[in-house]
Amino acid sequence: MMPMITIEAAQNKIDNKTKPVGSLGLLEETAIQLALVQNTLQPCVAKKRMLVYAASHGIAEEGVSAFPAAVTGQMVENFLHGGAAINILCRHGGIEVHVIDVGVDADFGSTVKFNPVFFDRRVRRGTRNFAKEAAMTEDECQQAMDAGREQVRLARENGVQMLGIGEMGIANTTSAAAIYAALLGIPPEKVAGRGTGVSDEGLQKKQQVIKNALISHHPTHTEPLALYWLSAVGGFEIAAMAGTILEAAHMRVPVVVDGFIATAAAAVAMALDEKVKPVCFFAHCSNEQAHAEALECLQARPLLNLEMRLGEGTGAALAMHLIDSAAKIMCDMATFESAGVSNQNQS
Amino acid sequence: MMPMITIEAAQNKIDNKTKPVGSLGLLEETAIQLALVQNTLQPCVAKKRMLVYAASHGIAEEGVSAFPAAVTGQMVENFLHGGAAINILCRHGGIEVHVIDVGVDADFGSTVKFNPVFFDRRVRRGTRNFAKEAAMTEDECQQAMDAGREQVRLARENGVQMLGIGEMGIANTTSAAAIYAALLGIPPEKVAGRGTGVSDEGLQKKQQVIKNALISHHPTHTEPLALYWLSAVGGFEIAAMAGTILEAAHMRVPVVVDGFIATAAAAVAMALDEKVKPVCFFAHCSNEQAHAEALECLQARPLLNLEMRLGEGTGAALAMHLIDSAAKIMCDMATFESAGVSNQNQS
Repeated sequence: MMPMITIEAAQNKIDNKTKPVGSLGLLEETAIQLALVQNTLQPCVAKKRMLVYAASHGIAEEGVSAFPAAVTGQMVENFLHGGAAINILCRHGGIEVHVIDVGVDADFGSTVKFNPVFFDRRVRRGTRNFAKEAAMTEDECQQAMDAGREQVRLARENGVQMLGIGEMGIANTTSAAAIYAALLGIPPEKVAGRGTGVSDEGLQKKQQVIKNALISHHPTHTEPLALYWLSAVGGFEIAAMAGTILEAAHMRVPVVVDGFIATAAAAVAMALDEKVKPVCFFAHCSNEQAHAEALECLQARPLLNLEMRLGEGTGAALAMHLIDSAAKIMCDMATFESAGVSNQNQS
Repeated sequence: MMPMITIEAAQNKIDNKTKPVGSLGLLEETAIQLALVQNTLQPCVAKKRMLVYAASHGIAEEGVSAFPAAVTGQMVENFLHGGAAINILCRHGGIEVHVIDVGVDADFGSTVKFNPVFFDRRVRRGTRNFAKEAAMTEDECQQAMDAGREQVRLARENGVQMLGIGEMGIANTTSAAAIYAALLGIPPEKVAGRGTGVSDEGLQKKQQVIKNALISHHPTHTEPLALYWLSAVGGFEIAAMAGTILEAAHMRVPVVVDGFIATAAAAVAMALDEKVKPVCFFAHCSNEQAHAEALECLQARPLLNLEMRLGEGTGAALAMHLIDSAAKIMCDMATFESAGVSNQNQS
């Protein structure tokens, strides 16, 4: 078996670079984390891919979003025509985009269906309305998770060295908020935010929906709680992202977790497997109000805080540039010795 | 004369993109600022250049730095061999690097002297020790500023669309801190930080040096105060960066201001000319303790906070990727209309 890289070896390599110790801050921590995940002192994340999972949400019926539910399908078309924010940022960052339909309620034409970066893994035309019943069955949840796992294996086959995860799904901040409330205990009034810009009235509905869901879906048996809540109040895209993270942990592939919704998937995955945390790179703290608290509960330190709240993987796309920078610092910078630079005064 | 782009026109363009209004946070503000600086709704910062100014500091004699003064010259050689952090980050970000010697106390060999990206604009072999006398004469200060202005004109001739400014100069956090204390009124105990990692003893010396300088250099006449203090306690690289910013404001070239030292140059330039602020993009809040307060005094909102404290332009190099992303969002994203995506519910 290959000997494992130690944190000391990685730290030592960084400390010999021509810079004051620790002066590259989070870039140094990121470089060390990458070295440990990839088990090499020459980490490389040159080949990057963004996985954008899309799904519709039954809970949208409750009027919890500022946008009509049809936008989920329309945005999938936008992704495949290359005009959405995630396309622009990925093109700029040298990141491939895959779009995976795990449950969109729309009829796509051939320009979508036959697009080589589109994957039809639709479990159902949207989840059920979790204000009335469980969002999905256990079997449907597993199908969505499997679609997420599959992308990791495909990425590995294609030589991809770092994955990003993002999503599209009108009303999915309500789903993510309910997961945080159930798993992390953040109260409904705090965990419900404005999402894409819902009105005061919509915000109150959202809080009430989450409050009710915690009661009506109260678990009665003892299977893994995280999986239970994922099925009860989650979304297919959240399940797929959780599957991606779990498989990435298994295959030791770095995963860049986008914002509020993607972090909910990470919360589920982290509850299920302790090997998950080391492969996760948290991209940014979004402007969705409870994200900062959720990240804190998970002891996750995000790289960016640009007050973004768009999803799609946009924060992850920007963070990938920083993570790649960290890898290059570790690999390419001169050492004090090689550059003939005097080190700190020893006095 | 060309009609000027209005902030409303720029905001309106961003608001029609396929995303909830405001959901790209600081990227949107950045895109609008770029549009106004370049006076176009198609801002472009594809061609980028980092200006790294280097100079030695007489104040280093007081033992205010963790590194020996010789490191300034050694790092210039490292920059020109491509092994320093700034080289790695600029290569990764598609940014050219210019290294300008405005006052290094070192004898460079031919590999430095004849390097096409090296500029010998040395005013003097380092500033004087400002614990004893003024760091530079007014004439020397102007020479250094002119070296900085010259780079903007050269950049414009070369078609460069965005400049970054960074620096190298052992002991220059003391110089920058003294400028902040004098211009922004931040007290010496707060404004002096650990720099590259100075000891407790060094930190106390640094505070004392700044305290004494405020008294011994107390101005007796009424020329522009910012220029007075720049000469009294500044550094040649700080003067050169101030010159760059002033010329960039004149020529409407976006300038990305790096960290603690570069922001001191921005403080000087902002005090001298009100046209400066709109062209400045503040890259990051560094880990040097007074930087957050200095940025707040200047009402400057940094893009990144990665706990970095290296200088060289490293924060600016990372921020340039974000700024370029903002430009591309504004230029390349689809609109609701062009993509056939429904806009927010009007209810």
